[in-house]
Amino acid sequence: MKIQCLLTGNELMSGHTVDSNSAMIAELLAAKAYALYRKVTVGDDKQLLLTEMESMTRQSDVLIVNGGLGPTIDDLTAEILSELTGYALQQHPIALAQLTQWCQRLNLTLNDANLKQALLPQGVEIIRNPTGSAPGFAITHNDCLIICTPGVPSELKLMMEQSIINIICQRYPNNEQLATLRFQTFGMGESSFQQLLNKEFNDWPAEVELGFRAGLPLLEIKLTIRNSQHAAIQQQCFQRLKQLIGDYIIGEGSCTLAEAVIQLLQKKKLQLTTAESCTGGLIASLITEVAGASAVFEAGIVSYSNRIKHQLLAVDDNLLEQYGAVSAEVVLAMAQGAMATSGADYAIAVSGIAGPDGGSPDKPVGTVWIAWGSKGALKVHKMQFTANRKWFQQVVAATTLDLLRRDLLGIDNKPRYFRNKKPR
Amino acid sequence: MKIQCLLTGNELMSGHTVDSNSAMIAELLAAKAYALYRKVTVGDDKQLLLTEMESMTRQSDVLIVNGGLGPTIDDLTAEILSELTGYALQQHPIALAQLTQWCQRLNLTLNDANLKQALLPQGVEIIRNPTGSAPGFAITHNDCLIICTPGVPSELKLMMEQSIINIICQRYPNNEQLATLRFQTFGMGESSFQQLLNKEFNDWPAEVELGFRAGLPLLEIKLTIRNSQHAAIQQQCFQRLKQLIGDYIIGEGSCTLAEAVIQLLQKKKLQLTTAESCTGGLIASLITEVAGASAVFEAGIVSYSNRIKHQLLAVDDNLLEQYGAVSAEVVLAMAQGAMATSGADYAIAVSGIAGPDGGSPDKPVGTVWIAWGSKGALKVHKMQFTANRKWFQQVVAATTLDLLRRDLLGIDNKPRYFRNKKPR
Repeated sequence: MKIQCLLTGNELMSGHTVDSNSAMIAELLAAKAYALYRKVTVGDDKQLLLTEMESMTRQSDVLIVNGGLGPTIDDLTAEILSELTGYALQQHPIALAQLTQWCQRLNLTLNDANLKQALLPQGVEIIRNPTGSAPGFAITHNDCLIICTPGVPSELKLMMEQSIINIICQRYPNNEQLATLRFQTFGMGESSFQQLLNKEFNDWPAEVELGFRAGLPLLEIKLTIRNSQHAAIQQQCFQRLKQLIGDYIIGEGSCTLAEAVIQLLQKKKLQLTTAESCTGGLIASLITEVAGASAVFEAGIVSYSNRIKHQLLAVDDNLLEQYGAVSAEVVLAMAQGAMATSGADYAIAVSGIAGPDGGSPDKPVGTVWIAWGSKGALKVHKMQFTANRKWFQQVVAATTLDLLRRDLLGIDNKPRYFRNKKPR
Repeated sequence: MKIQCLLTGNELMSGHTVDSNSAMIAELLAAKAYALYRKVTVGDDKQLLLTEMESMTRQSDVLIVNGGLGPTIDDLTAEILSELTGYALQQHPIALAQLTQWCQRLNLTLNDANLKQALLPQGVEIIRNPTGSAPGFAITHNDCLIICTPGVPSELKLMMEQSIINIICQRYPNNEQLATLRFQTFGMGESSFQQLLNKEFNDWPAEVELGFRAGLPLLEIKLTIRNSQHAAIQQQCFQRLKQLIGDYIIGEGSCTLAEAVIQLLQKKKLQLTTAESCTGGLIASLITEVAGASAVFEAGIVSYSNRIKHQLLAVDDNLLEQYGAVSAEVVLAMAQGAMATSGADYAIAVSGIAGPDGGSPDKPVGTVWIAWGSKGALKVHKMQFTANRKWFQQVVAATTLDLLRRDLLGIDNKPRYFRNKKPR
């Protein structure tokens, strides 16, 4: 069974818009064991679209057309399909009813531009768009099921999940029972992981497909089986991986580093505080992005200058003078100061040189000191990251959260990234 | 002249990777007045790639092939082009020299996998890859110039800029002298802007193309001319737009809100501080993401709880009790407290309900109070944003930076987003 995707829109050809819709379609199809075979992208050009649709329907069983359902004159999908199939355009009652509801919900008056969206080739099957104005629809041509979808990613996603996947499953039933076990890791690259696996796990079972997805700074690992009878083997693989790299696993599903840290703090009824210099609030921001963060986080301090390190975090001026702001002594004092001020049990403190300026031969751009832990048991480590300012801040923030996660879990071995990224 | 793009790789078909390369190619081509006509994406399948390349070369003057130049067995581009053109694969001396240099630079030994990357169809023209291992190359087939490029975005970008655009310009000279004036705006959507323009600027000159790019939360506006003789008309349009919507313009080029604010503070030799509740450090993080932020920013406080608002920002407990944390009184006190503590001249303070929990009939999720300005002249405003937690934080952070920017510029009119987004 061949599924193709036709992506339409001048904004995709000019480079103004990066197409993420087709990747989303592919992932949702893959979850049901369907694969996307080929994608074609063209602008809003009627002749080109006609030729492309005719040719693609001849080569596939399902064609998902994305875009061109809007209310403006460059939205051509319905018109082209009418010409292609020979079915005249007419006002579709279900499409009209959905549009009317949509207008009522947003307190708008149905105008001519909207009415155009209900003008569809005779006999199409309407696909409900639960959030947007453009109804989707399906029609068959050249023995190919054509599914027309809107370009707005959030609308497309809901329609794929609620309707389109089912329509495809009904037309082309798939006996494979795909089941994927996903988990997030931090601190090990895809190639290091693959090397380790080749060395330690050379009897990897054929029933379990291994997949990766680099979502920096995390690496997602997926274990997929195509038959539910293999669930036990999948679990065995997961358990053996946990033994091999368990300390690098942040959590199952789409768990983030901040979510993992917050869960651990909540479980232990502990409070965290942050004292940030080079990351400038990013760590606090990652924590408070998570719903429910307020249960474990009350205060964060961005101490960008030495004066503020002294004034808000009570860092001794002598330490700042003697060791400099980017030093073990100062980050330890920052962490202690933040805990004293906020009354929190755990702290993260960072001080480093994000660049592009501010480096020296002793402490080049990319140097960072990190302190983390609880009052009586603060740890400190120096790292060096060669990256631009923004990426440096991201990777430092992720590393501090991971170090705290390891601390809260009582994992006392040194992560690989300590060994690999030696300070210069 | 027709340019097409063939994107290859299983990761593009599975949805694991979103293709941003073709948008980058299109933008770099557009800057030289070339347009991309059609894009096709397929996996690493030899027969499919052969068919596609044969068909695409028959339909275009230039075919840019992206991906498939790596060292592994699923990198098929050179092999397929050899089969397509009839030119045997042979070790290319220039490609080999570049690979040897690359290995030396990274202190690696040239291995068999790397050697495969120098095995190219006879007679190709090598395109230097200044940073990566895979050499690019060009070859002609069916009277179509085929340009083969690596999949790594940073390598592709450099090669496009340094070599490929020139190769295309030499083969198909373009007399158009495209010149684009880009600027960033905040607070007005594309459709509102277009409406305003239709109303106030109905004599828009045909020589100047108007383009938009929504890079949330900013909207980029582009004025493009195709002949340098029209530079004066382009400038006139820009000046008239400045009169119409000058206060919405953040800056020319790719200026961000934080950059604009920092520039203004630097110019006036002023210091800024932040007191954040619902944005949890995001505003400080956006500011410190900008190189040179330390000149205007010393301290930011994330006061997530009432206790910390009182303790670190000296917010009166009576105010918190009487008006609640999300109130005009409390954000004003937070801003004053942050200035007193840090010694800064200007402050931003926010307190709101990011959700999903914590709302009430009086103060539903999405309510936020913002205070901004200098010691003697603090302003305060209540807003309501219906969005998920992460997007709410982003839009609140952007709005506060814009309000401060307007304040620093002495723009005292109320922005449109005050009128459009009325508090419920």
